[in-house]
Amino acid sequence: MVFDLLVENGRLVSEGGIVEANLAIKDGQVAAVLAPGATVEARMRLDATGKFVMPGAIDPHTHGGHGDPDRETLLNASMAAAAGGITTILDQPLSNPSTVTIAAFEKKLAEGSKSCVVDFGIWGGLIPGHLQNLKAMYDAGAQAFKSFMCRCSNYPMTDDGTLLKGMRVIGDLGGLVAVHAENDTLIAQLVEDYARKGKRDVEAFLGSHPAYTELEAILRFIFIAEQAPRCRAHIVHMSIPEGAAAVAQAKAEGLNISVETCPQYLGLTEDDLRRVGGIAKCDPPVRSREAVDELWEFVIDGTIDILASDHSPHPFDKKVVPEAEFWKAGEGVTGLQTMVPVALTEGVHKRGMSLSRLAAISSTNVAQRFGLYPRKGTLGVGSDADFYLLDLDREWVCRAQDMHYLNKHTPFDGRTFRGLIEKTFVRGKLVSDQGAIVAGPGSGRFVPMRMN
Amino acid sequence: MVFDLLVENGRLVSEGGIVEANLAIKDGQVAAVLAPGATVEARMRLDATGKFVMPGAIDPHTHGGHGDPDRETLLNASMAAAAGGITTILDQPLSNPSTVTIAAFEKKLAEGSKSCVVDFGIWGGLIPGHLQNLKAMYDAGAQAFKSFMCRCSNYPMTDDGTLLKGMRVIGDLGGLVAVHAENDTLIAQLVEDYARKGKRDVEAFLGSHPAYTELEAILRFIFIAEQAPRCRAHIVHMSIPEGAAAVAQAKAEGLNISVETCPQYLGLTEDDLRRVGGIAKCDPPVRSREAVDELWEFVIDGTIDILASDHSPHPFDKKVVPEAEFWKAGEGVTGLQTMVPVALTEGVHKRGMSLSRLAAISSTNVAQRFGLYPRKGTLGVGSDADFYLLDLDREWVCRAQDMHYLNKHTPFDGRTFRGLIEKTFVRGKLVSDQGAIVAGPGSGRFVPMRMN
Amino acid sequence: MVFDLLVENGRLVSEGGIVEANLAIKDGQVAAVLAPGATVEARMRLDATGKFVMPGAIDPHTHGGHGDPDRETLLNASMAAAAGGITTILDQPLSNPSTVTIAAFEKKLAEGSKSCVVDFGIWGGLIPGHLQNLKAMYDAGAQAFKSFMCRCSNYPMTDDGTLLKGMRVIGDLGGLVAVHAENDTLIAQLVEDYARKGKRDVEAFLGSHPAYTELEAILRFIFIAEQAPRCRAHIVHMSIPEGAAAVAQAKAEGLNISVETCPQYLGLTEDDLRRVGGIAKCDPPVRSREAVDELWEFVIDGTIDILASDHSPHPFDKKVVPEAEFWKAGEGVTGLQTMVPVALTEGVHKRGMSLSRLAAISSTNVAQRFGLYPRKGTLGVGSDADFYLLDLDREWVCRAQDMHYLNKHTPFDGRTFRGLIEKTFVRGKLVSDQGAIVAGPGSGRFVPMRMN
Amino acid sequence: MVFDLLVENGRLVSEGGIVEANLAIKDGQVAAVLAPGATVEARMRLDATGKFVMPGAIDPHTHGGHGDPDRETLLNASMAAAAGGITTILDQPLSNPSTVTIAAFEKKLAEGSKSCVVDFGIWGGLIPGHLQNLKAMYDAGAQAFKSFMCRCSNYPMTDDGTLLKGMRVIGDLGGLVAVHAENDTLIAQLVEDYARKGKRDVEAFLGSHPAYTELEAILRFIFIAEQAPRCRAHIVHMSIPEGAAAVAQAKAEGLNISVETCPQYLGLTEDDLRRVGGIAKCDPPVRSREAVDELWEFVIDGTIDILASDHSPHPFDKKVVPEAEFWKAGEGVTGLQTMVPVALTEGVHKRGMSLSRLAAISSTNVAQRFGLYPRKGTLGVGSDADFYLLDLDREWVCRAQDMHYLNKHTPFDGRTFRGLIEKTFVRGKLVSDQGAIVAGPGSGRFVPMRMN
Repeated sequence: MVFDLLVENGRLVSEGGIVEANLAIKDGQVAAVLAPGATVEARMRLDATGKFVMPGAIDPHTHGGHGDPDRETLLNASMAAAAGGITTILDQPLSNPSTVTIAAFEKKLAEGSKSCVVDFGIWGGLIPGHLQNLKAMYDAGAQAFKSFMCRCSNYPMTDDGTLLKGMRVIGDLGGLVAVHAENDTLIAQLVEDYARKGKRDVEAFLGSHPAYTELEAILRFIFIAEQAPRCRAHIVHMSIPEGAAAVAQAKAEGLNISVETCPQYLGLTEDDLRRVGGIAKCDPPVRSREAVDELWEFVIDGTIDILASDHSPHPFDKKVVPEAEFWKAGEGVTGLQTMVPVALTEGVHKRGMSLSRLAAISSTNVAQRFGLYPRKGTLGVGSDADFYLLDLDREWVCRAQDMHYLNKHTPFDGRTFRGLIEKTFVRGKLVSDQGAIVAGPGSGRFVPMRMN
Repeated sequence: MVFDLLVENGRLVSEGGIVEANLAIKDGQVAAVLAPGATVEARMRLDATGKFVMPGAIDPHTHGGHGDPDRETLLNASMAAAAGGITTILDQPLSNPSTVTIAAFEKKLAEGSKSCVVDFGIWGGLIPGHLQNLKAMYDAGAQAFKSFMCRCSNYPMTDDGTLLKGMRVIGDLGGLVAVHAENDTLIAQLVEDYARKGKRDVEAFLGSHPAYTELEAILRFIFIAEQAPRCRAHIVHMSIPEGAAAVAQAKAEGLNISVETCPQYLGLTEDDLRRVGGIAKCDPPVRSREAVDELWEFVIDGTIDILASDHSPHPFDKKVVPEAEFWKAGEGVTGLQTMVPVALTEGVHKRGMSLSRLAAISSTNVAQRFGLYPRKGTLGVGSDADFYLLDLDREWVCRAQDMHYLNKHTPFDGRTFRGLIEKTFVRGKLVSDQGAIVAGPGSGRFVPMRMN
Repeated sequence: MVFDLLVENGRLVSEGGIVEANLAIKDGQVAAVLAPGATVEARMRLDATGKFVMPGAIDPHTHGGHGDPDRETLLNASMAAAAGGITTILDQPLSNPSTVTIAAFEKKLAEGSKSCVVDFGIWGGLIPGHLQNLKAMYDAGAQAFKSFMCRCSNYPMTDDGTLLKGMRVIGDLGGLVAVHAENDTLIAQLVEDYARKGKRDVEAFLGSHPAYTELEAILRFIFIAEQAPRCRAHIVHMSIPEGAAAVAQAKAEGLNISVETCPQYLGLTEDDLRRVGGIAKCDPPVRSREAVDELWEFVIDGTIDILASDHSPHPFDKKVVPEAEFWKAGEGVTGLQTMVPVALTEGVHKRGMSLSRLAAISSTNVAQRFGLYPRKGTLGVGSDADFYLLDLDREWVCRAQDMHYLNKHTPFDGRTFRGLIEKTFVRGKLVSDQGAIVAGPGSGRFVPMRMN
Repeated sequence: MVFDLLVENGRLVSEGGIVEANLAIKDGQVAAVLAPGATVEARMRLDATGKFVMPGAIDPHTHGGHGDPDRETLLNASMAAAAGGITTILDQPLSNPSTVTIAAFEKKLAEGSKSCVVDFGIWGGLIPGHLQNLKAMYDAGAQAFKSFMCRCSNYPMTDDGTLLKGMRVIGDLGGLVAVHAENDTLIAQLVEDYARKGKRDVEAFLGSHPAYTELEAILRFIFIAEQAPRCRAHIVHMSIPEGAAAVAQAKAEGLNISVETCPQYLGLTEDDLRRVGGIAKCDPPVRSREAVDELWEFVIDGTIDILASDHSPHPFDKKVVPEAEFWKAGEGVTGLQTMVPVALTEGVHKRGMSLSRLAAISSTNVAQRFGLYPRKGTLGVGSDADFYLLDLDREWVCRAQDMHYLNKHTPFDGRTFRGLIEKTFVRGKLVSDQGAIVAGPGSGRFVPMRMN
């Protein structure tokens, strides 16, 4: 048999380890994994000597399809993904309109289909008053649902009662419920205290989001999840090590729960926020250097399952604000293109995380948790040939103008990263080459989640 | 010296044990505790042969001063208290007007002063928007403050942020914050589910208040209290053993927390509620037989610190409702007059609780926790001579018409109790004799809480 | 390229899932994994249509090389292994002589090399007075060391102090320490009590080994392991679900610990012991039906990492004893040939365990934990081609006379198993075919453990 | 009535608080507690103006009756007790002969009766091979039994099995079992390591007794106690805050357990040991400054129930050894005369402990836990009139030569204490006056423990 593509001489990384092997691709799928000396024919050969062949990252948490034309587009988001080694994005439901009806789902699906350059999936939303909509979205492939435990500008907060009811409904369907875990009023009262004193700067922002405001919601979510044991529970963008410890405890007691953290919590500190300003503002906020170090330990030891970008852009005029009016800055940082580089630089190089662990948190675990496995998340035979070629030791400087985002800003502007994503392939086709996008809009495909 | 009164030949009960001793009273206070043979002179002698001299019970949680003339009056409540061995009542703040301002406090103080036949204290309320009022009430003697973690008909719910802020303010003052711990929306969603199915009967009521709806709030309160370590924390009317276990854990970790339970949770079960109907309806609801038994274990082992009546009456037309309209029944049961009898019957006689433990949970612990000690809560020298004479083994049948409440109903109507309160003395003066009130309105005095 | 062997049309099982794939073998290793349609040339083709290709089981805990000629031989043990789908055995150190010196290690290595028909590794022993021997054994490939926390007939008990000291030494080397976790004197005192009453039957045996006698040692071992955090900790043949919960807790707190259980604890109950007698006697003993069910939950949810046979034979005259003299029966059951069948029957078929989970606990996890991975424990490219062909649904009756053990007894005699091991291959060579051994003594090779 | 003695104008301290009251004594018992103005007649009046009347301390853990004539005598020990405000001592069983038989018990009883100047009780011992002796000693008033979990020079170590069996036997009787909690072999191996390096100095001693060697035994004892729930459990001379946290946890889970600590762990640090040398050597050893501070927190918050001296003297030649031979120094410090002064100075004055809390840990709790209450442990009517007059703020310097011990050394030599014990009374009789003993040998009486 003649294969379409043979990736030769590289080191193939999986969550289970690293092997020297060639990867043979046919019809967009992995058709064979071969020992270095096992020669086969192929129409095209790619020499990966000295490179690592990494399973394509799956970003389970993006705000790409905002529907808000000055924030981001799925085209831009997916281009940044490709350049960043991400071969599938799962777009979360806070958008315009929010993905809480099958109609909104189909609108986003249509938009993604015509614009994405990487594969994509779509979350549903769990909000009050919309429980009757869950099944249609679930059947259409949105089998993960997101709730906010706190107020958010344009997405309804979900009260505990609705959250539990929704988790029971979704649990019966076979799905997953994820929360943005912060306590609404604990934060609101602190904000009010600062505001009364006329403080609206970065210190007021940090001071009004102490770790306990996040931890309370995490513990409450764990409690609620225990009342809905059939539902898979997930916590998005956790920023605090105390939360990871709580999740470890819940797992030990048998709860079916997972947790993600993000590059901003792994590569930025409060001092970075003070230096960078609004561009680095997100919610929960970045934390102390000590917290970052402890969070990494939980990433490396396996407590934190998943890496996500929470890519959530705003236009420049919403991010660049006067110091004294830091409150006005939009919450959310860009992150698709820098997610894997941050993990390589801060995790693999600086803290000794193995590439296998990176493959797990950025790909395999995501696919398994979100119902994409084994189609995605592995480079096993029969799986989609989604991967990127990694030059592990190459250093490069991150420049905002090189980002493919609609709004070309990044809190990592000027940062030297170690580990270069040379080429990204989706289903065996080259999508990004040295950061340049070589695939056209709509080449990405919708991937339904199938939890069971 | 000639004493005013000598209580002779009785067995004197304290939290530390039982001794045969005579009690000599002078000017309303305990002037001497004497060995049986140590003869002294007294103007009046009371022979307590065969009786126990119990420290007067202090009920920390009554709805006596409602300000709502068809529900209850402080006169009636205090008469029932006296007949039930209770020599001090602490009236909680949900009233008309609610005790969340110094003006409301003074109004209730005036009413109590002219009507109470036992001593009384007054709680303040911690609700949103009234934090500036706390200090004035604290200084006036309302050093305990109550919040509702869930909605209540006519008292604002306190959000987590306000609760924490209030606990920090009150903690700095030196006070105590207590909560009604139920999760508002967990219950609301269950109610809604039942309502949608047209179910509004007693089963719907019980089914919409499962243990987890109370436990969640307890755990959240513990978490919040941990963020305000200077504030004494207290949980009112806890109904579930799971909650007691959580409190035990919090205490072991060093939290300054206490918890009360009530006769309704110790002497009534779900089957009683089904049988009695609205008259036995309270919130949280009464629980299963197994839960009652487990709750008693926590009372006896010391985990549960305090016994309170949560006496909360409604007129008959609010309590007696059609079966299918059980929802309409007002929440809250009467309890002042039956609190000690329930504890004697169900605790001392049926489950082997010592009288010393009863003295602790009904008197000493309350006084210590609410800043009345050592003026109240002990029959030591110099303390107020508040006590009742107990005929421990006498059986009697509880009759609703014998209650001194404005609305003469009780869920214990027809129940045979063992342990008769013969005479109740407040500051050395006889107030109740065989259930008849022999003191006039206004003979009770206001007792300010002094936590420090 | 022409491969040596192509296993076609089967379903390839790994811990990550099941794929339809062909396995191409060259020089004893997996040379390629191919999609079903990806045709290649091979000298030999094996049609696995309808079969599962399972990674060869690795039994980390056998008493094969006893050195005691009437108990077992490595030849017999390895034959039974092969017939049972086990392609590597790790022989534990209690033997004659015990493997606590490099000389004893080399003696066992020589014996294994000339007799084994499957691959084999060798444990070292951690006992008092032999710490200076650890490094030589470690360097020679015995990187896991076993201690007894209780007395054993012919292997010294290791006191807590020696255990901790040994764990620190071995942790610095990079190795693993495993314990037989039972409290010596808790059991001894119970035995003495029974003996004083003249009770030496099966009930006395069960009654003197209650769960707490095992749990205490597990908790103590966890405590000791926490003082030697660089050492990998492992618990052999755990029989109680309470122990699994303790291990889950320790893992959540960050301890590097693993645990194995055995077919006897997963497929036999106390009633089986009463019925079968001495043939089913092992230590710890088999447990109640409820315990077995709970233990399975911990196997399936991932708390229990590893499956081991603890194959520990005795001659018939040591196992078949009068009922009243049950104490005299040797402790230890045979198990190599039935380990995988028990897991298939009781786990996969009866309790819904996935074949991937079986691959994990019987192969991948073992290889990773004991330093054999990725040479063993996976059918990835470059790994040894150790596997067996499984006819998942085929039922068969287990007969003692079919066992390859020197002493042909099994507690599962007469049991109907579901799931037939058709053929077993070691490094690409057929070793067992329908239960018949087709490889000669010495065809197995020594596999050193390399933990790092 | 004319009382024998009236203690006037003092402040009477109990665990429940402090009141101004006069104490009237008749026939050795408290006959009345009177308000300051309640005048009565008495043959003798003692003006306690400006003083505190403290309930006599009860030291539950002394090595007074060694039977070893060069170490200590009950006469000397009881004289030191009296001078130190201690009115009852409970002598532990390690002696010559050890109190593990009724004969040894009676021998010690005879000796105490003729020599003690304060009241005394006698422990029994729980050691292997003596379980049949427990009941006779229990019936004779030795209802508390002590075991060593580690080796001790001349008292057999008790293995876990015997300990559990003993606790079940003693629990059925109604008694208490206390342990010296240290892990024998964890320490032994560390000692051996030091010895091999030729290190036998104070650093070797401290280094071979790290906190975990004590904590392991504490946790194991808690586990064993959980298997014998009818037995009261007690831990003697706990030195580590980690142990207190473990006990708090066990109590929260319902275990009937108590714990004592000693002045040496509350008033001495490792630096004191380095400075003082062998005179301050005890086992477990004194700990770090941080550990001492944490331990005090557990004393003040109520986790640690009891204060004991563990007065355990050696002759000078056993305590004063060359630095390099620190191992040879006998383990055990003197402590009876300085126990209360240390608690006053370090606890009350330096750390704000209330006198009521001191009354609890040094008297009331001890009496309640060891079956002496209410005869001892309270100054309530009918109780023995055991008390001391305390000049709380008086400073004085501790001098070894002022100690009443047979061997006049103390690790507190030269220490300035604040709080002077002016007079000590036992059953209404003055025993010690300004440190001078005014009662004769044999004036003390045996007090049997009656746990139920």
